[in-house]
Amino acid sequence: MSFIATPQFLSFPEALPLKGGGSLRDYTLAYETYGRLNADSSNAVLVCHALNASHHVAGVYEDQPRSEGWWDNMIGPGKPVDTNRFFVIGINNLGSCFGSTGPMHLNPDTGEVYGADFPVVTVEDWVNAQALLLDRLGIGQLAAVLGGSLGGMQALSWTLQYPERVRHAVVVASAPNLTAENIAFNEVARRAIVTDPDFHGGHFYRHGVVPKRGLRIARMIGHITYLSDDVMNEKFGRQLREGLAPRYSTQDIEFQIESYLRYQGDKFSDYFDANTYLLITRALDYFDPALAHGGNLTLALARATARFMLVSFTTDWRFSPARSREIVKALLDNRRDVSYAEIDAPHGHDAFLLDDARYHGVIGAYFNRIAEELGA
Amino acid sequence: MSFIATPQFLSFPEALPLKGGGSLRDYTLAYETYGRLNADSSNAVLVCHALNASHHVAGVYEDQPRSEGWWDNMIGPGKPVDTNRFFVIGINNLGSCFGSTGPMHLNPDTGEVYGADFPVVTVEDWVNAQALLLDRLGIGQLAAVLGGSLGGMQALSWTLQYPERVRHAVVVASAPNLTAENIAFNEVARRAIVTDPDFHGGHFYRHGVVPKRGLRIARMIGHITYLSDDVMNEKFGRQLREGLAPRYSTQDIEFQIESYLRYQGDKFSDYFDANTYLLITRALDYFDPALAHGGNLTLALARATARFMLVSFTTDWRFSPARSREIVKALLDNRRDVSYAEIDAPHGHDAFLLDDARYHGVIGAYFNRIAEELGA
Repeated sequence: MSFIATPQFLSFPEALPLKGGGSLRDYTLAYETYGRLNADSSNAVLVCHALNASHHVAGVYEDQPRSEGWWDNMIGPGKPVDTNRFFVIGINNLGSCFGSTGPMHLNPDTGEVYGADFPVVTVEDWVNAQALLLDRLGIGQLAAVLGGSLGGMQALSWTLQYPERVRHAVVVASAPNLTAENIAFNEVARRAIVTDPDFHGGHFYRHGVVPKRGLRIARMIGHITYLSDDVMNEKFGRQLREGLAPRYSTQDIEFQIESYLRYQGDKFSDYFDANTYLLITRALDYFDPALAHGGNLTLALARATARFMLVSFTTDWRFSPARSREIVKALLDNRRDVSYAEIDAPHGHDAFLLDDARYHGVIGAYFNRIAEELGA
Repeated sequence: MSFIATPQFLSFPEALPLKGGGSLRDYTLAYETYGRLNADSSNAVLVCHALNASHHVAGVYEDQPRSEGWWDNMIGPGKPVDTNRFFVIGINNLGSCFGSTGPMHLNPDTGEVYGADFPVVTVEDWVNAQALLLDRLGIGQLAAVLGGSLGGMQALSWTLQYPERVRHAVVVASAPNLTAENIAFNEVARRAIVTDPDFHGGHFYRHGVVPKRGLRIARMIGHITYLSDDVMNEKFGRQLREGLAPRYSTQDIEFQIESYLRYQGDKFSDYFDANTYLLITRALDYFDPALAHGGNLTLALARATARFMLVSFTTDWRFSPARSREIVKALLDNRRDVSYAEIDAPHGHDAFLLDDARYHGVIGAYFNRIAEELGA
């Protein structure tokens, strides 16, 4: 049984300038905190989320027993990131659909729902907003910033945008930028959404509809790429959904894997916002700290002064170990303090969210070292 | 400059019983032949096609200079499969949209267009239809049957359905069945088509529309999986379509890879039939000769008496070398004559259609050996 978590909200009237142009004002950030901030405010750990997640990182909501946070196996009392020692903060990013200001909220300039007019937000913008929230909480320097996948990109970006505010960065199953193949998968998912007749150019709220067909396809593609070929074969293989012989149909479900994907797609389309999907995949596509340095990642990471822990998973073909090693190499080129663990796990990209003894052991040991440093 | 090819057509009034139940009657098969059948009809080579291909394997059509067949680099006078020595036959499969009877043709039982009522056809059904066409051409035994990808599955199936009619089987970039991941990609593509409002349950012809949105998505997914991550990075990388800085948009094209995929999707949706897409991906899903033998491929291939040549490509993650090796092992378990070449090529699954000196050298040498055997 996990502890009770309570979402909180802070409003920011001042305009936040955005990397892609324009700004956002009168926005709200949803966040949660676990554990207690110590006297010198030195034990704060910020957890950054990926595509389909939120500020609800750990714990459960009162009277909702199955509402565990998305990284509840990692964060909590006695867990690898121990909330008895650390003050952990989860923040929902701008543009998301789980509490912070996003495309389904009112645009203060027009009084209408943003929809497709919500500005393009980047990893850098999210980090800036997170920094403003930490200011309000009275946290100058983070003991650590931690994230997986797109969350790892934010952790990395923290060390470049606010080097003096980060002691440690823990970057899990991430990459210094997306490959062409990753952008390609994102683009197919976006096209499925944008060409759904119920998308209405992103202003579907006005029409009282949701582009569910597109969201379903987007989620199905996502699920395939989060898993490894091996784990799919092990979990589903060529098992038929019913009986031992195929029924021969082009449109009915025949294989278990089809049933699983359709279920995941249906579930996702019931709660995820289509404009948020576009915004978050674009933030992934655009993240590329080396771009301003002619593609030279070593130059790009020269600003970082934090100590680093990187983790990757052998069967992750979306954010492969080779991509983490690029970051490790660039940090070592800059003579930074870097630990790196490549975990032999069968689960593909999804492994970063799963409970794996070696993985949690590595993260736990690293946070234990941080806690000892702090005397926490 | 290639030679002139001429499509031909043969009609079959008799009903063809289908593996999935039901039958097809009064159907037409489109085919082409290149080279000359020798006096004892022993030099015939059948080429089986994959998803997006046809009977137009080699040569060009008269007055259409850019109409090369899909395997024109492999087949022709002096090419690896030398039409000066072999009589090569390409046949369009039933259910396709390039000339043989398919979903856009009239159902003789109803007088209406088949649409979604076109029966599910399997690799085994295609091979049976191909065998009937060879009967009409007076060809008892094939010098070789040759195919890549889904075409390789047909070549393999020939050796099981008509072992006495095949001297050699050349199976390129293929597999004994699809993995869960492959079925998953097919299923996402099918869902994109079936949930397109213009699909109308497969009877879109009656409505004068085409489910182009779905076809575009299906083709984009296909293209990603035909290429390797490496070749995508090399061809497109993170290159922007315009200028050096992103313009920050969720819906406009920003990266070159997006432009490429949209173009491929648009082109495909202009000529490919949506019901054909469902049928052909299902034929891929269902192919599994080991199923009737409790999953034991060695038992399944015991019927085959042909000599085999298998080829795979190192970066093909859709039909990986490991899958070809499964076939090789099962054939060796049965003490069959097998050659196997694993070609180090960067192009992923697409490599089987490309001109690669080592690949073409291996195929050319094998067909040279067949020709010498025949005295051709």
